Amino acid sequence: MRALVYQGPRDVQVIDMPDAAIERATDVLVKVTSTNICGSDLHMYEGRTAMEPGRILGHENLGEVIEVGSAVDRVKVGDRVCVPFNVGCGFCENCEQGLSGFCLTANPGSAGAAYGFAGMGPYNGGQAEYLRVPYGDYNCLLLPRDAEEKENDYVMLADIFPTGYHATELAGVRPGESVVVYGAGPVGLMAAYSSVLKGASLVMVVDTHKDRLKLAEKMGAVAIDNTEDTGVEQIMELTGGKGADRGCECVGYQCCGMHKEEVPNLTMNNLVQTVKPAGRIGVVGVFVPEDPGAEDKLARRGQMAFDFGQFWFKGQSMGTGQANVKAYNRFLSRMIEHDKAKPSMIVSHELPLEQAPEAYKNFDERKKGWTKVVLKPGT
Amino acid sequence: MRALVYQGPRDVQVIDMPDAAIERATDVLVKVTSTNICGSDLHMYEGRTAMEPGRILGHENLGEVIEVGSAVDRVKVGDRVCVPFNVGCGFCENCEQGLSGFCLTANPGSAGAAYGFAGMGPYNGGQAEYLRVPYGDYNCLLLPRDAEEKENDYVMLADIFPTGYHATELAGVRPGESVVVYGAGPVGLMAAYSSVLKGASLVMVVDTHKDRLKLAEKMGAVAIDNTEDTGVEQIMELTGGKGADRGCECVGYQCCGMHKEEVPNLTMNNLVQTVKPAGRIGVVGVFVPEDPGAEDKLARRGQMAFDFGQFWFKGQSMGTGQANVKAYNRFLSRMIEHDKAKPSMIVSHELPLEQAPEAYKNFDERKKGWTKVVLKPGT
Amino acid sequence: MRALVYQGPRDVQVIDMPDAAIERATDVLVKVTSTNICGSDLHMYEGRTAMEPGRILGHENLGEVIEVGSAVDRVKVGDRVCVPFNVGCGFCENCEQGLSGFCLTANPGSAGAAYGFAGMGPYNGGQAEYLRVPYGDYNCLLLPRDAEEKENDYVMLADIFPTGYHATELAGVRPGESVVVYGAGPVGLMAAYSSVLKGASLVMVVDTHKDRLKLAEKMGAVAIDNTEDTGVEQIMELTGGKGADRGCECVGYQCCGMHKEEVPNLTMNNLVQTVKPAGRIGVVGVFVPEDPGAEDKLARRGQMAFDFGQFWFKGQSMGTGQANVKAYNRFLSRMIEHDKAKPSMIVSHELPLEQAPEAYKNFDERKKGWTKVVLKPGT
Amino acid sequence: MRALVYQGPRDVQVIDMPDAAIERATDVLVKVTSTNICGSDLHMYEGRTAMEPGRILGHENLGEVIEVGSAVDRVKVGDRVCVPFNVGCGFCENCEQGLSGFCLTANPGSAGAAYGFAGMGPYNGGQAEYLRVPYGDYNCLLLPRDAEEKENDYVMLADIFPTGYHATELAGVRPGESVVVYGAGPVGLMAAYSSVLKGASLVMVVDTHKDRLKLAEKMGAVAIDNTEDTGVEQIMELTGGKGADRGCECVGYQCCGMHKEEVPNLTMNNLVQTVKPAGRIGVVGVFVPEDPGAEDKLARRGQMAFDFGQFWFKGQSMGTGQANVKAYNRFLSRMIEHDKAKPSMIVSHELPLEQAPEAYKNFDERKKGWTKVVLKPGT
Repeated sequence: MRALVYQGPRDVQVIDMPDAAIERATDVLVKVTSTNICGSDLHMYEGRTAMEPGRILGHENLGEVIEVGSAVDRVKVGDRVCVPFNVGCGFCENCEQGLSGFCLTANPGSAGAAYGFAGMGPYNGGQAEYLRVPYGDYNCLLLPRDAEEKENDYVMLADIFPTGYHATELAGVRPGESVVVYGAGPVGLMAAYSSVLKGASLVMVVDTHKDRLKLAEKMGAVAIDNTEDTGVEQIMELTGGKGADRGCECVGYQCCGMHKEEVPNLTMNNLVQTVKPAGRIGVVGVFVPEDPGAEDKLARRGQMAFDFGQFWFKGQSMGTGQANVKAYNRFLSRMIEHDKAKPSMIVSHELPLEQAPEAYKNFDERKKGWTKVVLKPGT
Repeated sequence: MRALVYQGPRDVQVIDMPDAAIERATDVLVKVTSTNICGSDLHMYEGRTAMEPGRILGHENLGEVIEVGSAVDRVKVGDRVCVPFNVGCGFCENCEQGLSGFCLTANPGSAGAAYGFAGMGPYNGGQAEYLRVPYGDYNCLLLPRDAEEKENDYVMLADIFPTGYHATELAGVRPGESVVVYGAGPVGLMAAYSSVLKGASLVMVVDTHKDRLKLAEKMGAVAIDNTEDTGVEQIMELTGGKGADRGCECVGYQCCGMHKEEVPNLTMNNLVQTVKPAGRIGVVGVFVPEDPGAEDKLARRGQMAFDFGQFWFKGQSMGTGQANVKAYNRFLSRMIEHDKAKPSMIVSHELPLEQAPEAYKNFDERKKGWTKVVLKPGT
Repeated sequence: MRALVYQGPRDVQVIDMPDAAIERATDVLVKVTSTNICGSDLHMYEGRTAMEPGRILGHENLGEVIEVGSAVDRVKVGDRVCVPFNVGCGFCENCEQGLSGFCLTANPGSAGAAYGFAGMGPYNGGQAEYLRVPYGDYNCLLLPRDAEEKENDYVMLADIFPTGYHATELAGVRPGESVVVYGAGPVGLMAAYSSVLKGASLVMVVDTHKDRLKLAEKMGAVAIDNTEDTGVEQIMELTGGKGADRGCECVGYQCCGMHKEEVPNLTMNNLVQTVKPAGRIGVVGVFVPEDPGAEDKLARRGQMAFDFGQFWFKGQSMGTGQANVKAYNRFLSRMIEHDKAKPSMIVSHELPLEQAPEAYKNFDERKKGWTKVVLKPGT
Repeated sequence: MRALVYQGPRDVQVIDMPDAAIERATDVLVKVTSTNICGSDLHMYEGRTAMEPGRILGHENLGEVIEVGSAVDRVKVGDRVCVPFNVGCGFCENCEQGLSGFCLTANPGSAGAAYGFAGMGPYNGGQAEYLRVPYGDYNCLLLPRDAEEKENDYVMLADIFPTGYHATELAGVRPGESVVVYGAGPVGLMAAYSSVLKGASLVMVVDTHKDRLKLAEKMGAVAIDNTEDTGVEQIMELTGGKGADRGCECVGYQCCGMHKEEVPNLTMNNLVQTVKPAGRIGVVGVFVPEDPGAEDKLARRGQMAFDFGQFWFKGQSMGTGQANVKAYNRFLSRMIEHDKAKPSMIVSHELPLEQAPEAYKNFDERKKGWTKVVLKPGT
């Protein structure tokens, strides 16, 4: 099969690879019809991780079931399914509590597995013609009848829509509250969108990219253009000096300051400042336990100069980590089905799989207008 | 009246002060019969805060109501009451949500007020013969009939019992879970005790003071003696390599390392290490937005070199801040009344108010056996 | 002052009454500018309660503060405030937990007080020129600058918007879920609207009044016309045979069957049938501990032939009771302020106070188009 | 294999049956070493259900794994496991939310499956030498090293300990609160015990059997002897006229009145009366959608004359249904492991499987001292 393979820093190629296949009785085999490039793919693309050359990337996958293992009960050949980026088993201590992003079975010795991801187990990604889905009954979300016509919406359920939503759950967003979201990349936009869908009264999105801020406004959020470093003041003014009820971090460790230099504690410390006393912060932007290539000395060993004193004094709280996609994808799917949500509004490009290398390059360069790419294997 | 007054760093004296009195129609006046010295009093005692000389200290108070304002409905003269260290109004946005520790009325421009506390409003403390309690109907906990015979138990409801309990609520401790508590001072002991009362299956308390660890064991906890810096390994072994389900920080910014030097990030980074993936941490040890006298450069501006990468990668969460005493004191009071809890077990000394200066000195020096002092004005 | 006074069954008149006035230091005096007629006013109007003749009705009130007691801190003369129908003290065991609808102080011997309401304490209603608000700092919601231009929206915060919202909280409605609401009266419509605002994917409203069902559709809900008694089948079909995730009862004990006879268990048993296993039901329609005038023998002593076996077998749960308005009004107010909610869409009539008797008559007869009346004293 | 088989009303026999065996790749085969008789077995025994003659009873099972299917990952031959009475799949909409008692896969067309239970799917019970466990990785709780010496404790994790605990979760019991438990049978005792373990300050258990009330006292509860029908008054007095914070129903539809007649609404209406306003009730006693053999006319069609008016007026809430054992068994297991809980204290008889018929007879007759029977196949 054709597949997008990581070859080394900033080098990905579409080449022939052995076909994905059923390996265990609980596996499901999917013919991939949509597979996104994710911002976290860029961490690997840029060589900032321990990703092994030769592996297939892609963890935001949707397709048609073409074969099921002998012990698969629920999923049937012909079903259209969206596959969460997490690989979960469904029966470990974490999965049984809904923490499918911290599965203790799928990646022994660690908590959490994913397709085509550095340090998240041996699973191949889905930027390919076929994808093997382990524990298929647990990991496949069956899509409703309108799956084909809304495929670009449903494929967002694999990662970024639930991940943005997770930020708002970690932050505890409730109807009528105000929310500040740092980052207007795909995940930040989805966090803003989720806040709007939940009935927040005021959603503020901070970024410096004007095209992305425009998308935020389209979703019903207020754009906070931080180009002149006035974001904090704008937020305090909009909230009557009080700060937002809730905050979302959707940028991660590669956050950049005014002069394009990485300032890993910028968003977190701004959040502490712009969220109210006793407010809550959800962090879904990726932070890493070590980052040998970082400019910042603390960052190299995974540390951050965090405003802990202020955080404690304000009595704030914080939730972090990868989304447990299964905790949300079923109900978000119904919002798409009933036309209450349209996450595909952030899609900027639909491309054949063969053009993936070019797409990686443009997306990595934050080229204007490249918000979100959906690859279409087989076209 | 006689009162313990802060005169300057490591200088407190019992002197004559004007009597506390009813000032507003909603005030209650209390004749103090028990008032504790708290670990956070030591921050002021040591001159590590902006405490103004001339103010009366003391925020853990219990006594008899001797006068009520004209608009007081519930509290009556003769009632025995325990007074939360927080001063709340009962009607601001935070109080109405149960966040009485972050009252927006009692200390305008800030969130949260307290008696005899630096930066927490103009309220005098209760290490004195009389105490004025603002918003008396809201702030007084009426005690049951056995109040006098269990006075040393009930006075713990003013602060450290609810504060220890708050740590376990912030950490989300549930029956059957394992908990690691850093710090075996009065608050740490109360966090351990609260965990035991909640039905935790394994409660581990980390400290280097053997007398305090003994108290922890008496409460049903496992003592982790960190004298040889082996705490982390002990915890990992006791939890089968998994880490504790929940963690509590009960030390604060003056945490000390092996050689008595302050290492402000020691407990937090150890917690990240010894709490399981997706586990939760409650932080009630005090951290401050700035600490000009600190040795550590980051600490001076209230920052900490926090293992944020590991924290995020493990998907942990954290709650912080001062306890909202009113959220817990009513039900903890019932545990005392029905002989289910006996927090006075940590009291090491009962002393007349006049001996307060000596008690401060001994407590500040962590003199062996000085765990908790209850002052008895009028004796 | 002029006021609407209950004289006896189906007899209310606007007459001269002594002016409302400050009675205690914590009182606030409000000049009423908007006051609604509520469905529960009709229970009293129809003589189905123990309401004493001579009392002023009206518990959905908004106006301008014209005087404050000496112990009032937060509310100022000139403020525009909306007053929750509950009278709460702010400091009893229930109020301090946010259960302001079950205040133990304001109506001694019972739990919960209200203005102008049978069995809910001695407080006069606000269908009058002036209203005394006890515990004014606790009970007044300060309105933002746009209060006058959106007065018909904000006055809905006194009762029916929070009450409808309460139904969805008791039912636990979450984004993406399906909800069935029984009753398209003002409260049912507000429950449907609240569900939509919270991001429900499918909101079904059951009623037989076509004009009210139309309003439900306008709000984004699906109308279930039960005129032919096919509601249950329609709901099961719309939910794929599964039943709704959540259900709301917004009708109460005077529910009518096909032939206009009262069938008090009709909505509850239909809810058990049309809500999924492990689903949850919120009940805000009024049910009474005794109803001597009822046709149904069980109803007379406040009982209902409830499908308890089915309810238990399906593992459903249920929350009930009057709304704690203060738990919601602040955040719902922000939704109005930021143009995210417009509850006035159900207002059918704005009338001077003097026309109140006529309005009661029409509303009581469920005259077509009389959905919600806002009275305007002083016009 | 030898197995206890239901032959008809009040007729069970131990006979030879075909050996249980692995049927699917996800199955686990257990050699049963302990299997309890449950109160709900008696509903079948008495012929009050649609149980088919010829089926093996027994849903409280513990034993050793002797074979696993080819797709089983976690469970190994030789493991000692306790098997929840629920059969869940782990991947349906309900299981993935932790509602393993309402599995939509294991008993198609219904919600919830169980071993050896009328109307709960085709699964054979474990009052036999061997038991087939479907979805073995999901349904087996692995026991720690001390499993054999505490076998009578661990076998309680199959049903009654989690079921009693579930009552307290449905009721929302929190530390310091008061709880009233109706019924001192095994489940009621476990609800009382769970309340004590959670730190309730006052646990009251209502029954008329003095031997069982004694056990309740041994657990730390207060016995309310209702022989003279004074239970309600005793509870109101103990709670200062306020009622309990929480209530648990652990009796079910066969509740008996003063003269041994069935009064199905007795416990529920007493709970409404003896639980405080805004209090919460958990119902784990079994109620059935129809009961053709009932004396009470309403009961025949599964209805109850419920004090709904009072329930609503007090703003109470209620949760019901079978326990989701997996939601609790892991953490309750740790309480046993760490000697914090000893549920075997209610065991009155350990008997060989062959004596099961006699045990059923005695237990069904509520013969004095027959509180809980553990059968030991193979002895």
